Amino acid sequence: GILAALGKHKGPLGGVRVTVTAGPTREPIDPVRVIANRSSGRMGFAIAAAARAAGARVTLIAGPVALATPRGVTRVDVETAADMHRAVLSALPSTDLFVAAAAVADYRPAAASAHKLKKTADTLALALERTPDILAEVSAHRPRPFCVGFAAETDDLLANARAKLAAKRLDMIAANRVGDGLGIEQSDNALEVLWDEGARSLPRASKEDLARELVALVAERYRLIHPLKEDPARHAQD
Amino acid sequence: GILAALGKHKGPLGGVRVTVTAGPTREPIDPVRVIANRSSGRMGFAIAAAARAAGARVTLIAGPVALATPRGVTRVDVETAADMHRAVLSALPSTDLFVAAAAVADYRPAAASAHKLKKTADTLALALERTPDILAEVSAHRPRPFCVGFAAETDDLLANARAKLAAKRLDMIAANRVGDGLGIEQSDNALEVLWDEGARSLPRASKEDLARELVALVAERYRLIHPLKEDPARHAQD
Repeated sequence: GILAALGKHKGPLGGVRVTVTAGPTREPIDPVRVIANRSSGRMGFAIAAAARAAGARVTLIAGPVALATPRGVTRVDVETAADMHRAVLSALPSTDLFVAAAAVADYRPAAASAHKLKKTADTLALALERTPDILAEVSAHRPRPFCVGFAAETDDLLANARAKLAAKRLDMIAANRVGDGLGIEQSDNALEVLWDEGARSLPRASKEDLARELVALVAERYRLIHPLKEDPARHAQD
Repeated sequence: GILAALGKHKGPLGGVRVTVTAGPTREPIDPVRVIANRSSGRMGFAIAAAARAAGARVTLIAGPVALATPRGVTRVDVETAADMHRAVLSALPSTDLFVAAAAVADYRPAAASAHKLKKTADTLALALERTPDILAEVSAHRPRPFCVGFAAETDDLLANARAKLAAKRLDMIAANRVGDGLGIEQSDNALEVLWDEGARSLPRASKEDLARELVALVAERYRLIHPLKEDPARHAQD
């Protein structure tokens, strides 16, 4: 197989520059209140660690989470979807492989208040607007990194994931069902990984184990497009 | 002073049953999205620890935070304002002193969706409704614990805090300014503590130090209303 053909010294992603987003974003309503997504960041951090272990040079762009930085990984902390958008665009020129594991808020308050809102009304209508679609923008960029997306779905998991794969022209998508003790803020997860020509089920496991399996699968697909070049320097030492 | 008159064995809150709320609450928009307040929970956890060190029997009702339970404290974890409301009412019959340090969401989505919302519209209006005012309800309850509230304000700190003290008929309120590296999600804080007849400024310090000073001040005021009874068993041992 292709993995067996890889050099032992560097791993399957040796020298590949990987950018991973992880965690939630928080969108301010006012200085105290926020809209956020539930996300521990554990899956994205585990992917960053697994990519590093596979030899990649990893940048991890993280929303607000309570997790330690994986060893050997460069971390950039952000708060809002707009912050994450800026950080990803800044990393893009040095990104070969982009894994969008963050649960980016897709709506934010249309106007954040600089002052704490007073609780006067019994009800109120909060006006929301879309945030930038970071993954779609990265995928449309030229030159373009290899793009891996995530889809967390409560319903129609495979159909929704395949629609997102096509709509954003991703190379791969990892879909997980929300609920039943899996996925968000749970230690276990299970993934359906899809690409244009195929699919693989990664059954229920810890996020760390799943991340290693996913990174191996991503490396396999990545190397079909970007085959490992012979490294004369390494051969000279053999 | 009153503190000097207290027994060494029990501390200024010896035998007092204290309930502390801490952290944010999260109000679901759908299975993935939430409205939340920014809050690390550190101030409330520090107050629980300080009350325990002062001899109290402490129940800590905590929203979603990444903090260890202080030693000797009973912890109840909750997620939403409604959960926290239920937990506080359940603790109320065995509460002598209530410290409401949680940043409870005061608005929640009027209807949470069981299914993840699809991003179809460019803008949307999220309908919000008020959550129960836990502290006002506890303060209006008979019999009534000694009630300490918090007020985090960006503007008119003292006026807003004194208005809240009066409106909710609290025994004391601790007010802190939001911003300037103080307060929410910062390690330092500064408090203006107000009661009907007076006030005290607790200048900028770590939340742990402030919590100890606040608990000492609360104990002083509490003991004016509930003086320490002579303990014949203790005297017999002197």
